[in-house]
Amino acid sequence: MTRANGTPVLVTYDWVPDFPRGFVRDLRVRWALEEAGIPYKTRLIEQGDQDRPEYRALQPFGQVPVLEDDGFVLFESGAIVLYIGERSETLLPKDVAARARATQWVIAALNSIEPHLMNVALIDLFYANEEWAKLRRPSAVEFAKRRLAGLSKSLGEKPYLDGERFTAGDLMMTAVLRILKHTDIVTSDKRLAAYIERCTARPAFKRALDAQMADFRAAA
Amino acid sequence: MTRANGTPVLVTYDWVPDFPRGFVRDLRVRWALEEAGIPYKTRLIEQGDQDRPEYRALQPFGQVPVLEDDGFVLFESGAIVLYIGERSETLLPKDVAARARATQWVIAALNSIEPHLMNVALIDLFYANEEWAKLRRPSAVEFAKRRLAGLSKSLGEKPYLDGERFTAGDLMMTAVLRILKHTDIVTSDKRLAAYIERCTARPAFKRALDAQMADFRAAA
Repeated sequence: MTRANGTPVLVTYDWVPDFPRGFVRDLRVRWALEEAGIPYKTRLIEQGDQDRPEYRALQPFGQVPVLEDDGFVLFESGAIVLYIGERSETLLPKDVAARARATQWVIAALNSIEPHLMNVALIDLFYANEEWAKLRRPSAVEFAKRRLAGLSKSLGEKPYLDGERFTAGDLMMTAVLRILKHTDIVTSDKRLAAYIERCTARPAFKRALDAQMADFRAAA
Repeated sequence: MTRANGTPVLVTYDWVPDFPRGFVRDLRVRWALEEAGIPYKTRLIEQGDQDRPEYRALQPFGQVPVLEDDGFVLFESGAIVLYIGERSETLLPKDVAARARATQWVIAALNSIEPHLMNVALIDLFYANEEWAKLRRPSAVEFAKRRLAGLSKSLGEKPYLDGERFTAGDLMMTAVLRILKHTDIVTSDKRLAAYIERCTARPAFKRALDAQMADFRAAA
């Protein structure tokens, strides 16, 4: 990765409650940077800073992460992973068709899987005591399971979504599948459970997770 | 766009009920192909075919559209738009930063806006009579509106999300914002209403919409 202005800077929170630790979306970017072998710095913002006008000018929805690189600013973890992927054949193969399929799995994770897992996660973690959440949960779980069954069948006996090679698509899908770690909705599918194990056993994932946890400890 | 094996083939439904006509996701792909000036054919599948094993082998979630091009198959409208975008500077600028920001807005549409608009749309169009949906709707609308307010503020007085130039990000954002066309949740924001008007006034959008409707009529 050639950059005119030095090391990319990952902007994320200095503190979150215990339960999202290890799941904040900067993990996806850290993982991609580790896979690509790109060193980075972090700039940590405090809770509440995400609603300040100066942060909203970088990130219109007040979310993390943001990446500052080469004089420009990028948000959306999916877009940042694809941007890093353009500098790493581990993440995005050069072959046009293989690259398009890797991108397809990034988007499938973000648009066809994550919204349905998030609906369940939000019910469990934020709205558990609300009447609508109790009534809605069974059908939300059922829908999520249908999507997961389609994913599992498509994965089949391959180690990765596009075959023998790990790509950015596996990175994003694994990050998304971890969202329901507090349940067995994903891992009761043995194929998906083994897939998550396979992807998170990568040294780059472990370094990324350690770095996220270390930043929370350092700020505490 | 140079292709070894001829014209790309867009796979989508031959029939849907009245209310999703003009909204089926193949519209995004048709629009991108029109912006890029790439001729295409359609292959129409019947309702029910999306659950057959041979279609699930192409599209694991039983959704449309699929694009067959140059001997390979791609699904996820977002990934197909990015793939087409690589062949069209109208959609994805060559400049690295501008291209990354266009991709950022494609992903923002798919991951930060669409899930929240879809939650409202599903309540209104599929679950309106369910108790949980009645109880949930106000907070779902409130959350969608918060995201839309952030989007509107980021757009500001610019014609397009990244400034003076329309990109794939505007294409995807416009397609997503149209999801709540049965309400004024989006269009009560005058800036977003004008933005949708601006983007859907493009001849390529009109051709794409006409083509989707024409295929439904032809199959009827």
